Amino acid sequence: MKRYEQFADKIATLIRQGVLAPGERIPSVRQASQRHGISPSTVFQAYYLLENRGLIKARARSGYFVREHAWRLMEEPRVCVQRADPALVEVSELVFSVLDSLQDTSTVPFGSAFPSPELFPLSRLASSMARGLRELSPDAMITDMTAGHPDLRRQIALRYMLGGVQLPLEELVITNGAMEALNLGLQCVTQPGDLVAIEAPAFYASLQVLERLELKAVEIPVHPREGIDLDILEARLATLPIKACWFMSHLQNPQGASLSDERKRHLYALLKRHRLPMLEDDAYAELYFGSTPPMPVKALDDEGLVMHCGSFSKCLAPGYRVGWVAGGRFASAISRLKLMTTLSPSVPAQAAIADYLQRGGYDRHLRTLRHALETQQTAMLAAADRHFPSDTRITRPDGGYFLWVEFPERVDSLRLFRMALDQGVSLAPGPIFSATQGFQHCARLSYGHPWTERSERAMEALERLLASF
Amino acid sequence: MKRYEQFADKIATLIRQGVLAPGERIPSVRQASQRHGISPSTVFQAYYLLENRGLIKARARSGYFVREHAWRLMEEPRVCVQRADPALVEVSELVFSVLDSLQDTSTVPFGSAFPSPELFPLSRLASSMARGLRELSPDAMITDMTAGHPDLRRQIALRYMLGGVQLPLEELVITNGAMEALNLGLQCVTQPGDLVAIEAPAFYASLQVLERLELKAVEIPVHPREGIDLDILEARLATLPIKACWFMSHLQNPQGASLSDERKRHLYALLKRHRLPMLEDDAYAELYFGSTPPMPVKALDDEGLVMHCGSFSKCLAPGYRVGWVAGGRFASAISRLKLMTTLSPSVPAQAAIADYLQRGGYDRHLRTLRHALETQQTAMLAAADRHFPSDTRITRPDGGYFLWVEFPERVDSLRLFRMALDQGVSLAPGPIFSATQGFQHCARLSYGHPWTERSERAMEALERLLASF
Repeated sequence: MKRYEQFADKIATLIRQGVLAPGERIPSVRQASQRHGISPSTVFQAYYLLENRGLIKARARSGYFVREHAWRLMEEPRVCVQRADPALVEVSELVFSVLDSLQDTSTVPFGSAFPSPELFPLSRLASSMARGLRELSPDAMITDMTAGHPDLRRQIALRYMLGGVQLPLEELVITNGAMEALNLGLQCVTQPGDLVAIEAPAFYASLQVLERLELKAVEIPVHPREGIDLDILEARLATLPIKACWFMSHLQNPQGASLSDERKRHLYALLKRHRLPMLEDDAYAELYFGSTPPMPVKALDDEGLVMHCGSFSKCLAPGYRVGWVAGGRFASAISRLKLMTTLSPSVPAQAAIADYLQRGGYDRHLRTLRHALETQQTAMLAAADRHFPSDTRITRPDGGYFLWVEFPERVDSLRLFRMALDQGVSLAPGPIFSATQGFQHCARLSYGHPWTERSERAMEALERLLASF
Repeated sequence: MKRYEQFADKIATLIRQGVLAPGERIPSVRQASQRHGISPSTVFQAYYLLENRGLIKARARSGYFVREHAWRLMEEPRVCVQRADPALVEVSELVFSVLDSLQDTSTVPFGSAFPSPELFPLSRLASSMARGLRELSPDAMITDMTAGHPDLRRQIALRYMLGGVQLPLEELVITNGAMEALNLGLQCVTQPGDLVAIEAPAFYASLQVLERLELKAVEIPVHPREGIDLDILEARLATLPIKACWFMSHLQNPQGASLSDERKRHLYALLKRHRLPMLEDDAYAELYFGSTPPMPVKALDDEGLVMHCGSFSKCLAPGYRVGWVAGGRFASAISRLKLMTTLSPSVPAQAAIADYLQRGGYDRHLRTLRHALETQQTAMLAAADRHFPSDTRITRPDGGYFLWVEFPERVDSLRLFRMALDQGVSLAPGPIFSATQGFQHCARLSYGHPWTERSERAMEALERLLASF
């Protein structure tokens, strides 16, 4: 990371935390240069970058100002504590009916689960695919199926190492996206009827997996910024025979919360005390807006309890279907289960990603991607302020590409979803993120696509629909 | 298919059926030309092809003769009727210990589940991958995940149509190989504890799937040439609450049996009477040695009971992990289950195969592949005759790349397997094909790799080991 980027990130964090408020003047180039001991041209480059990211604005002859963003004005969503008993999940039909309707590519994709494919280096990946296939020995087409492509495994282990996690290669199982990793991991540590602690709101696919495996959900409330409520988790663990937990430690879907390192340590202490296996769903790990990669709970895992699941689907290669799990003590069971169900992810896709990672440029791509997402977030937050009722509550996550919106209680988000679809706008209604049909007046909006005039018009359409409640 | 190829296949069938016996003279070019109304040069081309396929031999000044093959001399394996009660399967540990030891690529791969990758058009596929990726719109990386690559779906449906099966496109679900298709299909129609009819001997992966899903196996004996014993199936269906069946109608693994069309009709009548869902595992469908593609049971399916599972892994693109299921009335349930577990097979792999199929040449490749396998089969049968005890029984399947060998009863195939591995030769021991640890003196040998001096030496090694029993 270049010096000016580091400096820009520092300023961005101050803006995000509200230390630098909307409309406030930021230090001049000369002041900043003197105060931080960096060259004026570095400061200038940083400010130029922040302007491009939509965070600051130059005013002629007056210097730089924090943009008048909406997003300090709306409050953050409230934590919703539901005291439902553990219960079998029945949400799949609803989720599928929502997902089916998201298929139409002509709609404005606020409901989409993926960022715009335009944000990914697809043509560089195609070149890597060509090279990867050329260099693959014919035998590897068969031998790489069982263990996974060796260079890919090494590259993934290397990234763990750079992030401070020492990982024995044997713990790594390459899978068909993080989705398969999570499925296999959960199957390895549960039996039908078992209790599993999940987040509320939770990623809808985790609810579907619980439903499919006939597991009972114990919902742990998630604070929109700080993540799962560890006190409630601790209380539940003390009274209920919970067999596993499935949490997103970073940029939780849908709210975007990340656990602080201290809270991660607290969480891991709980896991250890209860010998509780954890699926750490870290599909958005690379999409943080700050300058330091977050540490996974897996980094603390000296007992092999954590199955850390990652993927290239959201940050590099959508559609390639390559993910992995660092499976801890369950790695070999997961690997065998994979051999019995899908055998292997596609070998060419693995070879392409291995070649791409080996040639460098991944971190550069990630920085570009993060900046694009941050810019888009700013645009959507500003639009939300202009178009949503003033008592709307909204998240402002430190990464990813989702906003979680708590509309006034009169809004029925499933109805809103259907009405919006008629107007060519999709969104992800709150109840699909709940094992207990909660979050009726909430929705997840994606800013994963470049912000355009069409996006603005879609927000106007939502404004009109919201007025009808 | 060219005229001379048709004629060659006709002669090959006569040889295979024993109408033309080993050592026997076949009609001269002139006789054949007159008798069949084809030009002498066509006959000559056909004979040249048959010589290349190792079926006939020219002797100077005497004409063409059927080669002195071993394979009419050894008898075919006996049908093994076991009267075990339906039981939960426990075979995975054994299967994995065998599969693990097959990983070593320096062994002679008689135990391998895949043919030699050298037999596949890997570089043409790589070109198709490059073109497929170039032509894929960025959006398709995401939209093609759910439904599958549209051109690939069309190409697969087209091949069904050419094979006489009219298939609504909606029935087709693209999967991570046939393996995922079979897993999903079985999950859709069973609950833990249910009874499932399978073959004996059966493909070991089907046993593992039953074990994983806690299903009970009802073993139906398989005749090494004619396929499953339909009378026994009928009797079992009359007395046991069987919920599904999993059969290979063509080139059954491990024995290579194929059901005649008449027996397929009988089987389908049974399915219909009992409203019994069937997983038709047709992974080897394209590897028949004759000239006419076999008709799947699916062709008879007017009630949507048959889930016909196919794959490109054994005939075109190993390691790409692209298969499918024509799921009948269960298609939508299978599709949803796939969305919940792996989401999608790799989109680039689908695009590559779609491009390859669209550009033609697949059937030409398949003919070359079939001829290679047939030649290799002949070589292995001849070697088996030279090296195995004379009371060995062996199959001579009409396709695929496996021989099923019934050694004299004194031979313990698991011990043989371990001893052979020490000598650098792998094989697949009989008990991994049995829910009830049967087939102790049997083994599956693959002729999927080109026959070389090394293969001969491996057969000699087996000979020495067999002598020790």
